[in-house]
Amino acid sequence: MDSRTRFLKACRGEAVDRPPVWFMRQAGRYLPEYRNHRAKHEFLEVCHTPELAAEVTMMPVNRFAVDAAIIFSDILVIPEAMGLDVTYPPGGPVIKPEIETAAHVDALETPVVAEKLAYVGEALKETRKRLGDDKALIGFSGSPFTIACYMMPKMGKDRSMGARILMKRDPALFDVLMDRLADIVVDYLKMQIASGADAVQLFDTWAGEVTPVEYERHILPCHKKIMESLADEGVPRILYVNGVCGVLEMMAAAEPEVIGVDWRMRLFEARRRVGEKFALQGNMDPFALYASPEHIRGEVRRMIDETGGRGHIVNLGHGITPDAPVEGVEAFIDAVVNAELPKSL
Amino acid sequence: MDSRTRFLKACRGEAVDRPPVWFMRQAGRYLPEYRNHRAKHEFLEVCHTPELAAEVTMMPVNRFAVDAAIIFSDILVIPEAMGLDVTYPPGGPVIKPEIETAAHVDALETPVVAEKLAYVGEALKETRKRLGDDKALIGFSGSPFTIACYMMPKMGKDRSMGARILMKRDPALFDVLMDRLADIVVDYLKMQIASGADAVQLFDTWAGEVTPVEYERHILPCHKKIMESLADEGVPRILYVNGVCGVLEMMAAAEPEVIGVDWRMRLFEARRRVGEKFALQGNMDPFALYASPEHIRGEVRRMIDETGGRGHIVNLGHGITPDAPVEGVEAFIDAVVNAELPKSL
Repeated sequence: MDSRTRFLKACRGEAVDRPPVWFMRQAGRYLPEYRNHRAKHEFLEVCHTPELAAEVTMMPVNRFAVDAAIIFSDILVIPEAMGLDVTYPPGGPVIKPEIETAAHVDALETPVVAEKLAYVGEALKETRKRLGDDKALIGFSGSPFTIACYMMPKMGKDRSMGARILMKRDPALFDVLMDRLADIVVDYLKMQIASGADAVQLFDTWAGEVTPVEYERHILPCHKKIMESLADEGVPRILYVNGVCGVLEMMAAAEPEVIGVDWRMRLFEARRRVGEKFALQGNMDPFALYASPEHIRGEVRRMIDETGGRGHIVNLGHGITPDAPVEGVEAFIDAVVNAELPKSL
Repeated sequence: MDSRTRFLKACRGEAVDRPPVWFMRQAGRYLPEYRNHRAKHEFLEVCHTPELAAEVTMMPVNRFAVDAAIIFSDILVIPEAMGLDVTYPPGGPVIKPEIETAAHVDALETPVVAEKLAYVGEALKETRKRLGDDKALIGFSGSPFTIACYMMPKMGKDRSMGARILMKRDPALFDVLMDRLADIVVDYLKMQIASGADAVQLFDTWAGEVTPVEYERHILPCHKKIMESLADEGVPRILYVNGVCGVLEMMAAAEPEVIGVDWRMRLFEARRRVGEKFALQGNMDPFALYASPEHIRGEVRRMIDETGGRGHIVNLGHGITPDAPVEGVEAFIDAVVNAELPKSL
């Protein structure tokens, strides 16, 4: 069974020889070849240049036996396409002008995605050439809420604070912004699918920080709209929320094929709560990569025991950290590749 | 019904005229009188001086109709009592020397709490004099895990990262440190009870960041030891973990009287999962204080509807932020004080 088949079957809950594996932010700063590349090219230059983005996308595929590549890009290409200025100083991204009022929201451009973000489609096509046909290629977008978190003024240490306060102070304005972002995300993910993505993941790093009532009122409608709008595209849709425990059943109501599970809940518990209909993706603590190979092997064993290796895409519970040891990643991938499925299957 | 009776009855799940209210970090920087006080006195000077600590403890009681005072102190008085140097530069507390090896753990002092931390007992006694007999007085300690997070070198942006990695790399050493901290926390909370605390809260800001397996293996034993060791002291024990959703049933196994619930899960869901045996404390999103009075009243209504006002101590789901508006706090307390209980009670 090749990697692409394995990945796509796992997304649909079909039988596989072993669960597929990839990991969030796998083309990132923890890789020496990525750091070397970034010494020559600015972050946005890489995002904007299909050849460079494809080159970085391939780095983890060239080094590890991952079953899928995920296109190298950034969630903030969307606000950039809306006419905002996005920079990446140390300490985290900065978007100007900041969004606080109805006038600010009105002033945002609605981009023609096929023009403004064409470079992402080109990067996917270029990656497919390099990747061949037997590995899966994943497209992605930041979710409206997580993008909105970066569009608001930063308050305190918490990146989600501005968006969470606007959501409470002016829910109507907040929903207008969210809905505009959702429409762009739909166009953006459709373009990625048309450009060769085998699956798409919606990343919501911050949606686990709101109250369950707020998730239901202000975030779930966007997740539903995006998932429903992609239902006829014929590729698996992965919905990832960091902090899934409090909102899991609501995420399931958006009906993705795959639900991402972070490390703070067990996979069997997630399956008990949402049933066999959904594949699960996750969920090793990213910090486990700093531990011994034995510890990592034990974590891989635990994950596969919890799902039976069926309807399960092995992954971290959140993105890999910038200084994670490559040896930990090797131990992680090796353990999945050599995993035996539980006897009962 | 006076505030102290109301608070203590609510902790035991007994009938009250309305749920009691206090809030985490209620004596803090959001209060102008606190900022004025701190302009004259260093943070640790206030912690170490019973009259100053009592003065600050009383600030929210003097201003708002809260039912309880919580002693003004800091979770890091424990590492300080163990011989470490604790400072509070902008950006967060720093403890030196950092703890990384068995030799570092061995070198930690085991303080005689009644001597080294006598000033906290004196602060409680002084506060009781000022508070009178009709308000509750809450003592507290940081939990072993949260204290340990501050004792490790800071890695990346995540304060819990060092402790979470040591837990995986050297679980035996980690458990030795946790157990030593748990013993000190027990002595410390017993002293606070002997000094007049009507209830004690164990704060675990970071325990919700570990995996459920790690919580069960490395944190729950400490929570159990602390709760069991205080069982005969005759005061309610409040166990607070930020990020309760993934570990709630395990927290219940430690058998506190009261379980703190953060804002990311609903109170009725917490009650469904642990039953009527436990009182619940929480759980308004601290950022709701930045919203309109109507929004805040709606949140108070939601909380009381979810618990029926029985076995419920109204609180925020986490500590108040340093720049929260005082008007929001006023709206919050007023809404609780004027709350009508559901008709069915």
